[in-house]
Amino acid sequence: MDALKLLVDEVRLTPILISDPPLLNVQGVHQPFTPRLVVEVITRGGVIGLGETYGDGVYLDLARSLAEALPGHPVTDVNSLFGLAATADPVGPEAERDAADVDAGGLRGVRTADKLRLSVVSAFETACLDALGKTLGLPVHALLGGKVRDTVEYSAYLFYRWAAHPGAGPSGGPSGAPTGHPADDWGAALDPAGIVAQARRFDRLYGFRSFKLKGGVFEPEREIAAIRALAEEFPGRPLRLDPNGAWSVETSLAVARELKDVLEYLEDPASGTGAMAEIAARTDVPLATNMCVTTFEEVPEAFAKGAVRIVLCDHHYWGGLHRTRELAALCRTYGVGLSMHSNTHLGISLAAMTQVAATLPELDHACDTHYPWQTEDVVTTRPVFRAGRLAVSDAPGLGVELDRTALAALHRRWLDDDGTLRERDDAAAMRVADPGWRTPRVPRW
Amino acid sequence: MDALKLLVDEVRLTPILISDPPLLNVQGVHQPFTPRLVVEVITRGGVIGLGETYGDGVYLDLARSLAEALPGHPVTDVNSLFGLAATADPVGPEAERDAADVDAGGLRGVRTADKLRLSVVSAFETACLDALGKTLGLPVHALLGGKVRDTVEYSAYLFYRWAAHPGAGPSGGPSGAPTGHPADDWGAALDPAGIVAQARRFDRLYGFRSFKLKGGVFEPEREIAAIRALAEEFPGRPLRLDPNGAWSVETSLAVARELKDVLEYLEDPASGTGAMAEIAARTDVPLATNMCVTTFEEVPEAFAKGAVRIVLCDHHYWGGLHRTRELAALCRTYGVGLSMHSNTHLGISLAAMTQVAATLPELDHACDTHYPWQTEDVVTTRPVFRAGRLAVSDAPGLGVELDRTALAALHRRWLDDDGTLRERDDAAAMRVADPGWRTPRVPRW
Repeated sequence: MDALKLLVDEVRLTPILISDPPLLNVQGVHQPFTPRLVVEVITRGGVIGLGETYGDGVYLDLARSLAEALPGHPVTDVNSLFGLAATADPVGPEAERDAADVDAGGLRGVRTADKLRLSVVSAFETACLDALGKTLGLPVHALLGGKVRDTVEYSAYLFYRWAAHPGAGPSGGPSGAPTGHPADDWGAALDPAGIVAQARRFDRLYGFRSFKLKGGVFEPEREIAAIRALAEEFPGRPLRLDPNGAWSVETSLAVARELKDVLEYLEDPASGTGAMAEIAARTDVPLATNMCVTTFEEVPEAFAKGAVRIVLCDHHYWGGLHRTRELAALCRTYGVGLSMHSNTHLGISLAAMTQVAATLPELDHACDTHYPWQTEDVVTTRPVFRAGRLAVSDAPGLGVELDRTALAALHRRWLDDDGTLRERDDAAAMRVADPGWRTPRVPRW
Repeated sequence: MDALKLLVDEVRLTPILISDPPLLNVQGVHQPFTPRLVVEVITRGGVIGLGETYGDGVYLDLARSLAEALPGHPVTDVNSLFGLAATADPVGPEAERDAADVDAGGLRGVRTADKLRLSVVSAFETACLDALGKTLGLPVHALLGGKVRDTVEYSAYLFYRWAAHPGAGPSGGPSGAPTGHPADDWGAALDPAGIVAQARRFDRLYGFRSFKLKGGVFEPEREIAAIRALAEEFPGRPLRLDPNGAWSVETSLAVARELKDVLEYLEDPASGTGAMAEIAARTDVPLATNMCVTTFEEVPEAFAKGAVRIVLCDHHYWGGLHRTRELAALCRTYGVGLSMHSNTHLGISLAAMTQVAATLPELDHACDTHYPWQTEDVVTTRPVFRAGRLAVSDAPGLGVELDRTALAALHRRWLDDDGTLRERDDAAAMRVADPGWRTPRVPRW
């Protein structure tokens, strides 16, 4: 191995806007387009490694600083990315202020400058590992100690949703749609029958065995009814409900009582470690989180209080694939279960999720993924879920290649946007349909 | 990369006996020779990876089972070694019984079958990573996410000791020595002046800045005096005292009071997490351990009780280099410091220690090493400490090569032994000088 070939020559950042269906959550609704950032790390050997992360402005600013600092560093040196990110551009006053807001999508707990940085590093780490794997002819999982399984199980991610974004034509065509957003053919799902129909389609298309319902949209009784309907349609299949912290402790306990016989776990019923711990102490239903434990700093208190029995890992949150493995080790050590979170993402992130998931013996729940909702991608070949699983690629790196035509088109959309869609804002998207909408204060119920 | 080249073709195990000076500890004294096991993992590509671990019979038995199971597995798949070790040969009744004893050297806390297995896996993991690195032309640190420093600091490891093993001639020659053991020229160190002289020589030869004294040998007052003498000779230099759990809580607190102004940390003053926690609550002197926290299972209780402020990692204990990194992540998460433990070892282990230490930003104390006490080795080039540090090798793999002549000679010694030295037993070694010696019950003082 010529060590010079492993040095980073250039980093290319491509912010894009990707089509997203009108999926509802406690904050509002997904915008017609959501920002993502594609990171390409190019080595002196001419190999291109890929990474993907959030694309909002504050992430983009940090990514630009890190991209400037990286050339000359070997792609093997992913441990040093954290220090490099911290010193390349100490988060300035503006980013600190932005960081005090909620995160992209508002569903990540308290946003801090450190969390932003970790999300940016995650894409650079993934890209470095992809470049290293492609250079060596080894899959990323082999760079993480090797896979312990050949397929990774994913869960169907059910959403209350509209048929189309406001203004989009019912045909799905762009006529009359101010957003130019093509509707998909999934139709609306706003009641138990709609959710069951959606689940049936996921089951038929991809064979998912587990079902997760994004809750916090309607009053709890309606969401309980949806889970009950799912349990009746799919007896014995793992079911999860995630209201993104929308409920009070008492409401959470009431839902847990109603659904205790059918839930695999209840995810973030209430906001904050204190409330989660109180609920956990009073129910046997396992609680899971990707909101009150999203950084290592938040682990000790949550574990000490017994606030959660399952942590949803997410390499975008935790700072990459190595850090995800460290989180798994923490969970193993403390007897806490492990699942995987997903936010709107494309095929690069899905490949990274699958590679790291393959190396974690501790991953004992099906992983979440929004991927089936995404109709656009920047990879040349869309991965296919079979029996609810993805095969773990043994191809070099992440096993995906960039579709430059698709990337250019999605970047063009980002360039053409007047700025309103470059920052994900589910509440703003909701105000298009409901001008009086404000992000609800939690607990909402 | 031809994936077939990475498959394990053969595993070669070579038990050896290595010369060890008469270093004193609470259990007794090091035997003239101590067993180690050299593991060679040979790939179908013809590359040989090296690992080293304990060589006592119970380790050797487990290693033989794993060696039989490994051929056909890729050297990239180190995550699966744990499962393979557990299923290849579930620890049988005999090993379980042996495991209930104290460990090799008696200084590792309670011995369990799981600990034995992790120690064996550690050598196989190291050998796989060495083979992988040599195949790819990458140093092992690059397979662990890359080094974050170019040198690793080590501490001088001071011991009370005799000039020679009982029966060895004062000249160091073998004449009259029933063990055939050549004495070294360090001379005896049995009082503060002797310890200071030893420290001066370590300082002069290798430039170590930190000094650790193995205590638990004499009554605490005498060991306090030795530390005081070191503090006077080397003002401001980090000093550590480690009686291997020989003291009561009250004695530990008394020693802490006496030495609080000069100790970097006090290591395992008393045995067990409960006693350590009691001491920690009543002194400001940081407590370190490689006895009450030696497995992931022991972490939660010790951290919850605040029993230790520094954990000494050791890849032989924790199951390899990846697991050592996981321990570092745990310590980072819980705000616990990290140092590194050493038991009698050769250059293969020293290379592995240095490679993993180079990747750990959290390692904020100089590492222990017995290595300067070892006059024999199985590597072709002995690493050299300069200014108390070892340079981190960027050569492929661990950066060491096997000296087959030396290995054969040390293996011959193992073959020729009648069995008495194949199991490390510091108490038995002490009985050669003091027939009435029994392993002291702790707390001894």
